Amino acid sequence: MISGKNYIGNTLSAKGKVTYTTFNPKLNIKNPWTFYEASEEELEEAVQMAAEAFELYSMVPGKQKAQFLRTIADKIESLGNELIDTYMKESGLPEGRAIGERGRTLGQLRMFANLLEEGDWVEASIDTAIPDRKPVPKPDLRKILTPIGPVVVFGSSNFPLAYSTAGGDTASALAAGCPVIVKSHPMHAGTGELVASAIVTAAKICGMPDGVFSNLNSSDIQVGQQLVKHPFVKAVGFTGSIAGGTALHKLSNERKEPIPVFAEMGSINPVVILPSALRENPQHLASTYADSITLGTGQFCTNPGLILTSETDGLDIFLESLGQEILNKEAGLMLHPDIHRKYEEGQKEMSVQEGTSVVAEYQKKTAPNYAKPKILTVAGRTFLTNTNLHNEVFGPFSLVVKCSDLEEMKNIIAELEGQLTGTIIGNEEELKVNAPLIAQLKERVGRLIFNGVPTGVEVCPSMVHGGPFPATTDSRFTAVGPDAIRRWVRPVSYQDWPDALLPDSLKNSNPLKILRRVNGKLTIESI
Amino acid sequence: MISGKNYIGNTLSAKGKVTYTTFNPKLNIKNPWTFYEASEEELEEAVQMAAEAFELYSMVPGKQKAQFLRTIADKIESLGNELIDTYMKESGLPEGRAIGERGRTLGQLRMFANLLEEGDWVEASIDTAIPDRKPVPKPDLRKILTPIGPVVVFGSSNFPLAYSTAGGDTASALAAGCPVIVKSHPMHAGTGELVASAIVTAAKICGMPDGVFSNLNSSDIQVGQQLVKHPFVKAVGFTGSIAGGTALHKLSNERKEPIPVFAEMGSINPVVILPSALRENPQHLASTYADSITLGTGQFCTNPGLILTSETDGLDIFLESLGQEILNKEAGLMLHPDIHRKYEEGQKEMSVQEGTSVVAEYQKKTAPNYAKPKILTVAGRTFLTNTNLHNEVFGPFSLVVKCSDLEEMKNIIAELEGQLTGTIIGNEEELKVNAPLIAQLKERVGRLIFNGVPTGVEVCPSMVHGGPFPATTDSRFTAVGPDAIRRWVRPVSYQDWPDALLPDSLKNSNPLKILRRVNGKLTIESI
Repeated sequence: MISGKNYIGNTLSAKGKVTYTTFNPKLNIKNPWTFYEASEEELEEAVQMAAEAFELYSMVPGKQKAQFLRTIADKIESLGNELIDTYMKESGLPEGRAIGERGRTLGQLRMFANLLEEGDWVEASIDTAIPDRKPVPKPDLRKILTPIGPVVVFGSSNFPLAYSTAGGDTASALAAGCPVIVKSHPMHAGTGELVASAIVTAAKICGMPDGVFSNLNSSDIQVGQQLVKHPFVKAVGFTGSIAGGTALHKLSNERKEPIPVFAEMGSINPVVILPSALRENPQHLASTYADSITLGTGQFCTNPGLILTSETDGLDIFLESLGQEILNKEAGLMLHPDIHRKYEEGQKEMSVQEGTSVVAEYQKKTAPNYAKPKILTVAGRTFLTNTNLHNEVFGPFSLVVKCSDLEEMKNIIAELEGQLTGTIIGNEEELKVNAPLIAQLKERVGRLIFNGVPTGVEVCPSMVHGGPFPATTDSRFTAVGPDAIRRWVRPVSYQDWPDALLPDSLKNSNPLKILRRVNGKLTIESI
Repeated sequence: MISGKNYIGNTLSAKGKVTYTTFNPKLNIKNPWTFYEASEEELEEAVQMAAEAFELYSMVPGKQKAQFLRTIADKIESLGNELIDTYMKESGLPEGRAIGERGRTLGQLRMFANLLEEGDWVEASIDTAIPDRKPVPKPDLRKILTPIGPVVVFGSSNFPLAYSTAGGDTASALAAGCPVIVKSHPMHAGTGELVASAIVTAAKICGMPDGVFSNLNSSDIQVGQQLVKHPFVKAVGFTGSIAGGTALHKLSNERKEPIPVFAEMGSINPVVILPSALRENPQHLASTYADSITLGTGQFCTNPGLILTSETDGLDIFLESLGQEILNKEAGLMLHPDIHRKYEEGQKEMSVQEGTSVVAEYQKKTAPNYAKPKILTVAGRTFLTNTNLHNEVFGPFSLVVKCSDLEEMKNIIAELEGQLTGTIIGNEEELKVNAPLIAQLKERVGRLIFNGVPTGVEVCPSMVHGGPFPATTDSRFTAVGPDAIRRWVRPVSYQDWPDALLPDSLKNSNPLKILRRVNGKLTIESI
């Protein structure tokens, strides 16, 4: 049952006066629940509790944290249809997507549980002493990754489960040993509360310290800002717009003690189509990309918003087919009227840029909050001189750039901002011949894709969901996959520390049987 | 021979009108060389060349980069006495230290060469495809660490070799595959030019692209600021003051594209003396710490500037002995008149703080630029209410805090800013009993030391030379040891990429025979 209250640690609380509701975009009506915006007092309490919980939670052994994450997953599963139903009412996303995203969320929690159970992730490193070394003795040094402190996680609009309350940021931070305070996304506060209740239940069952998790409701920006400014908060995870992410990043750097903010923000995910692909199978390519552009009504951070082509045989057929395919798609429901409004504004803003022309625009009448897919095209030389054309339009939209040749395409890539992904469509020979172009693209992205689509982000160790600014605020980390945990840890070194008092990972006997770097060599041997 | 010119890539250049000299603190006279401050034109040229060099240098195989680093080390060695002599004239440091620091510098370069030759550091990870997975096929994903782009390194005042021109930041950035532009420290511009000449010679011998390294002279802050603001610069390494580091960090975050700044700044390196140590051997402890406080005239970033004691038997003897030992030390020469002046100002500023009293102050007359070692003491309750007492005094100075009990000591630790190190003096039983106090200390430091001194930073994999702000701007990285390379790299993922065109580290056949994570398991097997 949704109460509309905040979780301050394990306790439901509604001390604030401001309330708000969520919205069902499909029915175009408000949902029945009333949510209480967290008050300053509640926020302060949540952060204080997180700081106190950190003292205990940072010491909890990996296997117990793993059990906590598994129990969270189980309790989310136990929410059953109520969760799926609420998710659909608050996002307009279909049941299949709801179930799929729940599966991804559970999978992520269990992946981090596995990581903790294996235990190697702490990167234990031991350099033993050489007491008789000249001119000075070498001390015994042992290093391990340790949690950074309480983390604030901002839920995303477009992944109510997998990148929100118990999503990748929360799962990785809890795995690291950091308490988490979620700033719940106002568009799906009910989904958020249900998931929060599962986390709180799991925390109680597993005997985790009260305050290891809190869930704060907020429909405005103050709660988020205050969280980022709070001296007890030590890191921030955010998934959302460039404006939102850069504002938080700026705020964190104005603190007396600046803290790391990992914000995953905007990306237009350039797709580079080399000549062979246009010549050989333009219709098939058009069909594949029409699917990718409209998948989930284009509401993925890896949506292909920019397609770079060159004037070669097949380009006209590709454009015509792409237009045709787009017109054959159904209009797609968007997450929220605000997001639909922004889509309409964004695509219109692009359409009025000089030199753009419409390849296809969905024409039929639609119900409220449904987006009309749209494809524009523009010449390479125009794109090069107008950076407005680099802007992301969040939704089923793509801009096809017709470059006069591959040299112009390379120049365009060199001018692009940082991106999550870059895709190359072509054959191996073209890849080889165009090495400098590919190298340019590589410098701008976190993930390079060959003959595929950028949508679809596999959760696995080799995934990089990140990239140079403004795709993220720190290209040295990924938001997806086990390495996402590295955002919330720092190394600490123990010098000449008594063996009995070292963390288990660093003890001579290697009681956890983990892989360690001992005097430079990886081994599971004891010392 | 020192020309006083900048190295813009491989070319000596002196287009600027501003000149300056370095200073011999021992003789208290100017050194004979005139240095030409880099002009805006030269700076622009250096950055442009670095950006162009990056396209080539980022592709250079590890073994060739290793050869480059080894050749740099050899060429620095070949500078022979001229380097040692210049170092001494520009820093006032003695010959033994000059030779030792040169050894450390060569050791660091060769350590990164070893790392590149082994090749595992790129953290290659491969997840192979599962084409028939339901509901969607799993793509082939392969991840590797890749250099971030041109790096600006600011030379430090106190390590003219090991943390300057070819020091740890430069060595790790070049190892990563990043071109380096050094902003030479004005106090030892001649030493810097000599080392730069060795790097340039090595770059030519090894056929590295012109622009892979530049060395810019500057006696003021503009050159450094312009470098940090330049859009082609992608990361910054800095060792110096809190004011300098935070200013650059702020500047980097005001860029259109914020970039990572790793600044290693200030630390007072708290030493916690538990009761047993005071009771059992106060004289020995005093002697050990008198040595550590005055080592290198206190000009180490790990100098113990704060000693926390409690009112127990032995405290008076410890203080008396410490005072006596300090009075028996020789006055120490400082690096530069400016640093000496700041030391005098800093220790006076501390001495006038209410509640402080002098334990010992060197009384004899000294030659110019020699620092008089000094020890102050203050009550714990006074320290708790006056944050001025937390300030670093760079030089042979330490403040002994007399806490009424260990509870007050814990409260003091809880109020401390981030530090490079924290030291505990005591026995194992006390460590166990005072676990919460130790846990507090751990949260504030990068390295914990038991029954030792913080001075002496071992270069090895388990070293953490870093720590929470303001010790550094990002506690998630270390400035010393092989992991220092991680500051300059980001992961990039290849999806369904043709095997022949993958980086060697990711090819099926594993031609480099490196350790890779294949479907989650570490192996050197091919696929």
